[in-house]
Amino acid sequence: MYSVREFLEITEHELASLTYPPKPDGLYAPMRYALEEGGKRIRPILVLMGCNLFHESVTVARPAALAVEVFHNFTLLHDDIMDASDTRRGKPSVYKKWNENTAILSGDMMLIYAYRLLTRCEPHVVPRLLEVFNNVALGVCEGQQYDMEFETRENVSVDEYLEMIRLKTAVLLGGALQMGAICGGASAEQTELLYRFGLLIGLAFQLQDDLLDTYGDPALLGKPVGEDILAGKKNFLLSSALALATEEDRQQLLTLLHDNTLPAAEKIASVKAIYDKLNLKKRTEQKISEYFNTAFRTLDVLEIDPERLQPLRDLASELIKRQK
Amino acid sequence: MYSVREFLEITEHELASLTYPPKPDGLYAPMRYALEEGGKRIRPILVLMGCNLFHESVTVARPAALAVEVFHNFTLLHDDIMDASDTRRGKPSVYKKWNENTAILSGDMMLIYAYRLLTRCEPHVVPRLLEVFNNVALGVCEGQQYDMEFETRENVSVDEYLEMIRLKTAVLLGGALQMGAICGGASAEQTELLYRFGLLIGLAFQLQDDLLDTYGDPALLGKPVGEDILAGKKNFLLSSALALATEEDRQQLLTLLHDNTLPAAEKIASVKAIYDKLNLKKRTEQKISEYFNTAFRTLDVLEIDPERLQPLRDLASELIKRQK
Repeated sequence: MYSVREFLEITEHELASLTYPPKPDGLYAPMRYALEEGGKRIRPILVLMGCNLFHESVTVARPAALAVEVFHNFTLLHDDIMDASDTRRGKPSVYKKWNENTAILSGDMMLIYAYRLLTRCEPHVVPRLLEVFNNVALGVCEGQQYDMEFETRENVSVDEYLEMIRLKTAVLLGGALQMGAICGGASAEQTELLYRFGLLIGLAFQLQDDLLDTYGDPALLGKPVGEDILAGKKNFLLSSALALATEEDRQQLLTLLHDNTLPAAEKIASVKAIYDKLNLKKRTEQKISEYFNTAFRTLDVLEIDPERLQPLRDLASELIKRQK
Repeated sequence: MYSVREFLEITEHELASLTYPPKPDGLYAPMRYALEEGGKRIRPILVLMGCNLFHESVTVARPAALAVEVFHNFTLLHDDIMDASDTRRGKPSVYKKWNENTAILSGDMMLIYAYRLLTRCEPHVVPRLLEVFNNVALGVCEGQQYDMEFETRENVSVDEYLEMIRLKTAVLLGGALQMGAICGGASAEQTELLYRFGLLIGLAFQLQDDLLDTYGDPALLGKPVGEDILAGKKNFLLSSALALATEEDRQQLLTLLHDNTLPAAEKIASVKAIYDKLNLKKRTEQKISEYFNTAFRTLDVLEIDPERLQPLRDLASELIKRQK
């Protein structure tokens, strides 16, 4: 049985051993850059963990772990263009370091690479892996589409927001765990339960992100709070506030969000005051706990030695209880 | 045995029967638009033809034919952004009709769709199809990368140009035929020969395109000639000219290409005069014939009833001898 740390080491080792054709370097250099150390590698770790629940050696899951990480980084390359995000993990994003065309084309190539890596898994599991992967990948695209559409909409309901983050973030975490379990020889029922677990952890993970943006400690976060508020991002707190507030508070909230003359600190404080009135910190924490508890109950029906499940429980707890 | 016309009808019917999720429409509408009637459908026809050489019914090759056409249109969506091409088949390109983000994301989704379609082929051929498809897809990306790099280079050798079009255009034609043959139950040797045939036809096809741009009949082409000259595109004629010309003519050619004050007709006529001096029309026609003849000799060793090969020969001849 491996620890989270060992899974991370395996992932980094595998990523470092990936070979690239010597040319055209303009196409492959951005892929190398995107996959350099620095990411949290949560998704490949989940693949390896999913496998290790059922299989002592995780060698059989290595290509799938790599495929998932390459896929994730493909989405980042393209998302950064779409969202005009200039930095990624403290470094210039690919489209900023090179240009948009390079980020488009290298991203495409990484998506194809992800598929190629998948086909290097044991032949008897490849069809099931492809089915999960195709659904996950389409879901992630749909999630990104909703995320972009929400930017220009006045109102986004809580359910719409949750559906968006389910697609954009959670299905890949669920799919990673499921694919690992498939590689490890789990039954269809077990892989479904692990998908469900990953999905719920993914939802909780994103809500924790939303919560920290407003209620986090800037010293621990390493960045200022309130960025979502300033960007008018319809995250869980804002979509909840728009649904729960009195008509008067709702109007005030919309006015505040559209007011670009207001100093940043004042805008954040005023929006936060409305959130406080609606008890949104506690509501969000409750929602996170709900997802978390449902996820952990899913593990109970898996019929796996509890000790064997411990690394997965630890990782999930860490992801959700994090303060940064 | 089917005719080219029947293959086209099957392709259009299959494309029209593709189902899309109802939402998000912002993601799927561009895919529907891109796949509407209007394309020549050469690639899916080649898949069906490749199958029909070995198998009476082409039903088994339909998902692969669709996959190849969806993949081809994915490349068009992204290439049109990279090349800033505003129109495609007489209609606004996707990035122009919607926007860049939509073209990026819908394109990504189409690439995933192509893989999903492939996995719907008969399970025992899927691994071989995926292997061919992955290599072809990576090749197409590499070809596009070279094409972009060549734009900003002063000199591109004939061999570099041929390698670029091999990747960008020819491998997909070869791969389409090969994938069809795999679906139809061909031997490994037969599928390799058909790949080779498609590749050579693809190279000849692109050189015919280059030739028509300078020496075509505008009335038949339906567009003015000399567009490549005006764009300074390092096609087969220009890269040949740069290699074959005297130093004096070479300098004159470069001066002409960089001169943006010259009226279009004059620029085209002056460049063409240098091409004429180098006998480039005939040289290009010879190169096309060379590819064409080598391709047809490949068919001779296939050990297939010549009558059965006739539709493929007809299509190839049509593609290469076309005047538009």
